[in-house]
Amino acid sequence: MNKELLEQVLQAVAGGQTSVENAVAQLRHMTLEDIDFAHIDHQRSLRKGFPEVIFGQGKTADQIIGIMERMLLQENVILVTRVDPEKAEKVTHRFQDAIFHPNARMIIWSKGKVPVNGRGLILVLTAGTSDIPVAREAYLTAQAMGNRVEAVFDVGVAGIHRLFNHKDLILQASVLIVVAGMEGALPSVVAGMVDRPVIAVPTSVGYGVSLGGLTALFAMLNSCSSNVAVVNIDNGFGAGYMAAMINR
Amino acid sequence: MNKELLEQVLQAVAGGQTSVENAVAQLRHMTLEDIDFAHIDHQRSLRKGFPEVIFGQGKTADQIIGIMERMLLQENVILVTRVDPEKAEKVTHRFQDAIFHPNARMIIWSKGKVPVNGRGLILVLTAGTSDIPVAREAYLTAQAMGNRVEAVFDVGVAGIHRLFNHKDLILQASVLIVVAGMEGALPSVVAGMVDRPVIAVPTSVGYGVSLGGLTALFAMLNSCSSNVAVVNIDNGFGAGYMAAMINR
Amino acid sequence: MNKELLEQVLQAVAGGQTSVENAVAQLRHMTLEDIDFAHIDHQRSLRKGFPEVIFGQGKTADQIIGIMERMLLQENVILVTRVDPEKAEKVTHRFQDAIFHPNARMIIWSKGKVPVNGRGLILVLTAGTSDIPVAREAYLTAQAMGNRVEAVFDVGVAGIHRLFNHKDLILQASVLIVVAGMEGALPSVVAGMVDRPVIAVPTSVGYGVSLGGLTALFAMLNSCSSNVAVVNIDNGFGAGYMAAMINR
Amino acid sequence: MNKELLEQVLQAVAGGQTSVENAVAQLRHMTLEDIDFAHIDHQRSLRKGFPEVIFGQGKTADQIIGIMERMLLQENVILVTRVDPEKAEKVTHRFQDAIFHPNARMIIWSKGKVPVNGRGLILVLTAGTSDIPVAREAYLTAQAMGNRVEAVFDVGVAGIHRLFNHKDLILQASVLIVVAGMEGALPSVVAGMVDRPVIAVPTSVGYGVSLGGLTALFAMLNSCSSNVAVVNIDNGFGAGYMAAMINR
Amino acid sequence: MNKELLEQVLQAVAGGQTSVENAVAQLRHMTLEDIDFAHIDHQRSLRKGFPEVIFGQGKTADQIIGIMERMLLQENVILVTRVDPEKAEKVTHRFQDAIFHPNARMIIWSKGKVPVNGRGLILVLTAGTSDIPVAREAYLTAQAMGNRVEAVFDVGVAGIHRLFNHKDLILQASVLIVVAGMEGALPSVVAGMVDRPVIAVPTSVGYGVSLGGLTALFAMLNSCSSNVAVVNIDNGFGAGYMAAMINR
Amino acid sequence: MNKELLEQVLQAVAGGQTSVENAVAQLRHMTLEDIDFAHIDHQRSLRKGFPEVIFGQGKTADQIIGIMERMLLQENVILVTRVDPEKAEKVTHRFQDAIFHPNARMIIWSKGKVPVNGRGLILVLTAGTSDIPVAREAYLTAQAMGNRVEAVFDVGVAGIHRLFNHKDLILQASVLIVVAGMEGALPSVVAGMVDRPVIAVPTSVGYGVSLGGLTALFAMLNSCSSNVAVVNIDNGFGAGYMAAMINR
Amino acid sequence: MNKELLEQVLQAVAGGQTSVENAVAQLRHMTLEDIDFAHIDHQRSLRKGFPEVIFGQGKTADQIIGIMERMLLQENVILVTRVDPEKAEKVTHRFQDAIFHPNARMIIWSKGKVPVNGRGLILVLTAGTSDIPVAREAYLTAQAMGNRVEAVFDVGVAGIHRLFNHKDLILQASVLIVVAGMEGALPSVVAGMVDRPVIAVPTSVGYGVSLGGLTALFAMLNSCSSNVAVVNIDNGFGAGYMAAMINR
Amino acid sequence: MNKELLEQVLQAVAGGQTSVENAVAQLRHMTLEDIDFAHIDHQRSLRKGFPEVIFGQGKTADQIIGIMERMLLQENVILVTRVDPEKAEKVTHRFQDAIFHPNARMIIWSKGKVPVNGRGLILVLTAGTSDIPVAREAYLTAQAMGNRVEAVFDVGVAGIHRLFNHKDLILQASVLIVVAGMEGALPSVVAGMVDRPVIAVPTSVGYGVSLGGLTALFAMLNSCSSNVAVVNIDNGFGAGYMAAMINR
Repeated sequence: MNKELLEQVLQAVAGGQTSVENAVAQLRHMTLEDIDFAHIDHQRSLRKGFPEVIFGQGKTADQIIGIMERMLLQENVILVTRVDPEKAEKVTHRFQDAIFHPNARMIIWSKGKVPVNGRGLILVLTAGTSDIPVAREAYLTAQAMGNRVEAVFDVGVAGIHRLFNHKDLILQASVLIVVAGMEGALPSVVAGMVDRPVIAVPTSVGYGVSLGGLTALFAMLNSCSSNVAVVNIDNGFGAGYMAAMINR
Repeated sequence: MNKELLEQVLQAVAGGQTSVENAVAQLRHMTLEDIDFAHIDHQRSLRKGFPEVIFGQGKTADQIIGIMERMLLQENVILVTRVDPEKAEKVTHRFQDAIFHPNARMIIWSKGKVPVNGRGLILVLTAGTSDIPVAREAYLTAQAMGNRVEAVFDVGVAGIHRLFNHKDLILQASVLIVVAGMEGALPSVVAGMVDRPVIAVPTSVGYGVSLGGLTALFAMLNSCSSNVAVVNIDNGFGAGYMAAMINR
Repeated sequence: MNKELLEQVLQAVAGGQTSVENAVAQLRHMTLEDIDFAHIDHQRSLRKGFPEVIFGQGKTADQIIGIMERMLLQENVILVTRVDPEKAEKVTHRFQDAIFHPNARMIIWSKGKVPVNGRGLILVLTAGTSDIPVAREAYLTAQAMGNRVEAVFDVGVAGIHRLFNHKDLILQASVLIVVAGMEGALPSVVAGMVDRPVIAVPTSVGYGVSLGGLTALFAMLNSCSSNVAVVNIDNGFGAGYMAAMINR
Repeated sequence: MNKELLEQVLQAVAGGQTSVENAVAQLRHMTLEDIDFAHIDHQRSLRKGFPEVIFGQGKTADQIIGIMERMLLQENVILVTRVDPEKAEKVTHRFQDAIFHPNARMIIWSKGKVPVNGRGLILVLTAGTSDIPVAREAYLTAQAMGNRVEAVFDVGVAGIHRLFNHKDLILQASVLIVVAGMEGALPSVVAGMVDRPVIAVPTSVGYGVSLGGLTALFAMLNSCSSNVAVVNIDNGFGAGYMAAMINR
Repeated sequence: MNKELLEQVLQAVAGGQTSVENAVAQLRHMTLEDIDFAHIDHQRSLRKGFPEVIFGQGKTADQIIGIMERMLLQENVILVTRVDPEKAEKVTHRFQDAIFHPNARMIIWSKGKVPVNGRGLILVLTAGTSDIPVAREAYLTAQAMGNRVEAVFDVGVAGIHRLFNHKDLILQASVLIVVAGMEGALPSVVAGMVDRPVIAVPTSVGYGVSLGGLTALFAMLNSCSSNVAVVNIDNGFGAGYMAAMINR
Repeated sequence: MNKELLEQVLQAVAGGQTSVENAVAQLRHMTLEDIDFAHIDHQRSLRKGFPEVIFGQGKTADQIIGIMERMLLQENVILVTRVDPEKAEKVTHRFQDAIFHPNARMIIWSKGKVPVNGRGLILVLTAGTSDIPVAREAYLTAQAMGNRVEAVFDVGVAGIHRLFNHKDLILQASVLIVVAGMEGALPSVVAGMVDRPVIAVPTSVGYGVSLGGLTALFAMLNSCSSNVAVVNIDNGFGAGYMAAMINR
Repeated sequence: MNKELLEQVLQAVAGGQTSVENAVAQLRHMTLEDIDFAHIDHQRSLRKGFPEVIFGQGKTADQIIGIMERMLLQENVILVTRVDPEKAEKVTHRFQDAIFHPNARMIIWSKGKVPVNGRGLILVLTAGTSDIPVAREAYLTAQAMGNRVEAVFDVGVAGIHRLFNHKDLILQASVLIVVAGMEGALPSVVAGMVDRPVIAVPTSVGYGVSLGGLTALFAMLNSCSSNVAVVNIDNGFGAGYMAAMINR
Repeated sequence: MNKELLEQVLQAVAGGQTSVENAVAQLRHMTLEDIDFAHIDHQRSLRKGFPEVIFGQGKTADQIIGIMERMLLQENVILVTRVDPEKAEKVTHRFQDAIFHPNARMIIWSKGKVPVNGRGLILVLTAGTSDIPVAREAYLTAQAMGNRVEAVFDVGVAGIHRLFNHKDLILQASVLIVVAGMEGALPSVVAGMVDRPVIAVPTSVGYGVSLGGLTALFAMLNSCSSNVAVVNIDNGFGAGYMAAMINR
């Protein structure tokens, strides 16, 4: 439920174009809709400034479509995360304006271009090439939430001069998202260079005792730099969302 | 090395009161000082806006005193974390202005009262009474870094109306720090209520499969609310620091 | 072995229609049947009020059929859990009255409609849409065991007002089954609202440090609400069974 | 806040002995009391049929006393769990009627004898002698909540005839609490004998790969008997509470 | 290298039919053969009373065939474990006398029927039907090593009278192999009934916190019965081998 | 309950010296004695050939004494394991013939010298000097159960010729107990040398990723030698007991 | 960037054949090249004596080809690790001189034969036949880095005389790489025989509590021999690289 | 057994001053000495170039003294690791030339100053001040084994310019030992700067998910730099020993 829609209804009541009974019925649906397999939390845009995001994993294409159909009536932007290509095809077939980003496994639908309203620049860095899909998810999320976003890939600590080459951009960012697998050392080094909040994203890139990303996660939580907070393994979406909240 | 000190030296050079040779010698010490058992990173205040914080665990009282002696010459605020009472007594005996907060296991030394310069309010919430020490560490850190901080304790999810009683304060905060042990559910509920960044701090409060805080940590990383990022178990300091960075 | 069958045999002995030798032979089979790959525990209906439930995982379709053939002679209801579609097809092909519920991966066979004999209402709640399959398993089990069951899906803590919308139904239930993945916070919140036993079911929904459901499991075991007991990850069947026992 | 107290206030209002203003002030305190380090949830007795239980671990004796002082004014029974002897002495010194049970590490205070109002018998069984302290915590909790409770100790599976000796008592119980450490096998065997709900309590008794009780916990969650639900390691209190809820 | 072959060579030397040089060459090959991808330990039959057993997992069919070709010249029995059907077909195609047991994933080749020379009876028990494949591996191994073996399946603790029905057979065995997944409780109960060594075999049967068999393994290692020793998860082969060693 | 005592009672009945009523009363106590905090399983000597062993950990000295008092009337040997020195002093003060072995943390009481009746030699080997306490527990247990036992200490794989120096003794043993911490490699090497059963005992000796003995335990369960079965970490008692069962 | 290329450019500047501007442009590319999805660290050959190695896992064939195209211009040897056959075919189709080693999952491209310049012999040993793929990766890496390498397979501790048969070769090596799965005991035994550094490589060969190689890894880190250091599970490449560094 | 001693005996035999019988007796003791609780491996100096090192943990002071007494007769240097102050006092009281280093928990005894014979410089780096004790253990070990060693402390990645300040020394080292706790990132960064082998030592410094050093260990094993091998947590001794082997 975006703010404008709410205001329209209320002004219609105020102006006498809508009876109170009608407004109640309209607003009830606009707040919370129970469609059997899901309770759509339309009030979330009002409460949190951004609509509910659909977690695609474990949902059928039909369930995703069903939820989107209701949301489309009220929202300007819809995000679906963790969608595999088969589901994505069904969904984008149904909604022609929805775009599937296969690398980031995301579907984004928006009414026109999202306006930029974040305070500063959000910068996404990755340690390696294999971390790019998770970084893309962060990038697209932050962008869809109205932020200016830049990205630099493959600047891990094994050749640390690669990182220092981008020092200007790094110092310019107001929030940094640092994505790394394996030993997860990059966030500590980056956070040591800046006086800004760093969101660290561990990835499942690696093998053996990378333990599916647990090692990178734990390393980041143990960072000797203090301006670091961490999200779940491979949770690029969460990092982008959190960065957008900070950059508001 | 605070900014004013640096400017003094440079102006003295510009004004001819100090020779270049002298300035180099002065500045070298002001940047990085190797005192055998530690490399003091005086440049950190400049680079990160806040001086290096002394991690007290695993250091002797003498080592802490030694580091503080050098830092006192250049900084306005000094924090020492994870100090036990015996070490604290030696340190506060040496520095009469340093104050030991036993609950939070912190020593804070500052030149006068720290001025408030953060943008908004930082709010610290705890799920239980036993989580208060960690919350205090976050509170004191954020305050020492120049922020207005409020706290509400013991509003966990077993009686969720206790939380809703503080809804006004919660909606007013610009950054929230939520501290919880056991099942670590509070950050999810709080984050679902606000459009602000939430820093979640798991604590080691609990027994059995609380696993020393791992369960709360993992629960928080799996939060179904997206505006949550997490710091290490019992790391109140890190949460306060990160919140201060966001609130800058 | 249902109670009526046993009484029939005994009355036949009492009435002289059956010799003691015949009765012994009949009852031996009715108690415990060794069919090489399985020991069918026919006595279980007598002892526990409900016949043995067939754990489908790791058994071949032929083994399941073999066991059902013997049980059909003596029981009114048969449940097979964790059956994949291929096995299910073979089994339902053999027993035309058996129904496969693909979502819950269960086969249920019953002589006519199961009469309701439970004391009160069993209510099944889920945190998300992806938790529905496990909730269905609980629902169907409790129903097949003679209970009135209701369900509400997708009322997780990220938008907690969705839960409060169903407060009447929640207060009306005599046993509650709460199904949740990710951080597993919902059972704590629900249990805090009622004075009834809550069976918490962790699911493997999530990724990263959801650890295949371990995080939800541990969170539930650490619940700060005390009227919560927990079953294995994704064990909807066990939750339904336990709820039925409580509701007897 | 017990029900009688609430009715008294309301009747005083109805009868005109108390003004509405006074009643509001009285009731506000009776619902939720913020005493700085704790939010006392006085409403809990109304909502859940039993007052808040004080989790002693991590609280100081003064904090426990502070909370009890407020609760005493409104409740008939108060439980404090996980109290060590030193704290207990201070607390029982302050409240002469409070009794400390060192084995179970519990303090119980009640206005007179608690009346029995549970439906049936709650039976507590242990696998070994070393499991008795946890069993005592369950026993005392269930008793304090108004139930008839019996206990049989040291009937583990290494000599299974010891268990069968108590078959009559076992079949007579309406809820069973089974406490076991090491391999945690007893709940499965007991649950196989009855058609009643079994609450399994793993204990930290054992060494090596007992892993502080994790092995017993996991074994119980994997029980091949379906009428079993589990609480946290060493959580005798939770088991007693849950059993009381079921037995209501 | 079986004992007879060695004696033949030595008698030929003693009798002058073979020169010392020839004997050395013959014996060297009979002891240890390096075929590039494997060092065949022909001496093992002499040293350990049974030839090297081929671990099929991670070896190609060609490697298995290559090793068997050398062993066939010197041994009376050859076992290959953990062979999948495709590899098995290639191997049994090459050696017509080799038999593949798909359930146990084993290939057994022997010169005629293996004579029974073990001291007593080895009894294999399983908790469930799904544990049978592992039990079969144990059964076949012990049999191939010259033992009389019996098996009883599906006598788990949820209906413990099923076990007691076989008490005579159980008391008659000189070594017992007990195979169980899930909570792994059966070995404790069986070991409590006998004064014989029990080899416990955990299986990966189960889900959730069965943790791929770790829970059953840990439960068995924590057995409150002392005449239990344990082998690796799903290691039916090792249990059969160990039982044969004990029964020698 | 030893066999002689049982025969005495029965012969007294047969000979008319004892009435059936008296015999029943006598035998009932001889089978199972409920002394409130423990169920003494006197039948165990009959059933398993050796009386119940008292697990000292988690029992008070008084409980141990109470159990021993009843057992002394019926048994020839009593073992108490995992006793700390303080408890031991109380126990040995009460029973002058009981001997405390501080290294092995065991109390042994026996009527005279235990006669040797095992079939062959039990050999105990340790990898290091620090493993000796666990080895002693195994040694004393096997000896108290009537076996000839030898021990060789500190022959770990870092200097493997130390082991080969004792080859004669190793080949002579009928059962081997191999005790090792750290990487737990010794059982594999020893088992590769013999055609006898090897009981492997992991110890908690080590640090870092020895993980309190888990690494040694897992290594032993993964032994590439097949004549190895394993007991719990530091469970010297269990190893001695199992070896005695095998050697019977 | 190999050394000769750098010298060519500098001499061209010195000799006036190249302007400074041109040299700067040439050298910049030779140092660090940003090709969007990767930062190629051409300076690495200079800095570390061997060019960057391409980690194939998680990269597309096109990304690998793109990186190789830039590196080919400057390097003499290129290694790509963890490449599956499909990707490998695309890559070797593009670069005819690149050779795919399917067993080791590696692509190696080199300008002619790599000259041997290591100081001594590197010896690769494996415990079993199934460990050969990892050993091959180590072998090929060390060889491609200019070393003389030998290998002996299948000499695990279950038949330790197989190892001693190769004593001469073992004593002759200047660095040893020991590859083992399961209990990972071989490195300890080998390291006990030599006065040279041993690089231990755990493999994921095994099942059950081999835990995907964690057990072998932990066993090796706990080696009672001190001349052992360890690399990640299945990391043959890292072992070969480290051995080459030592042998330089 | 040092080489000179062996040569003396053999020359005495060759020269006729010693009979063969005497020499055998002398040499037997010089090779392997069984002193009941330990097998002293005197041959180790010959075989490995350095005598056996005494692992102090889990040994009594008397056992350490007993072993040292025998070793002193044959060796030039003796190291005892992991000794606490009480044991150390007894040992140094007995051997006046033995020196206890409390920080490193080591006792070192040597005949005069150890001559330097390593090829190059060994450099020890630490991330923090709290890592110094482990670094000291590495330093002292490498020095006692005849190497030139340097150390730089507290140069962790949170202020990475501190590390770059020591670039000259770093590039000059022939082997590097890098000691770090928390996220364990320093070895990756250092290894990226050099073409020399790096021995990484994780420490248990940290809290929460530092997991007693496991996180640092796993991070180091996942290093994106390839010239890194790792030793056990807090194993400074092993790192020093391995570095000495490499530097030989």
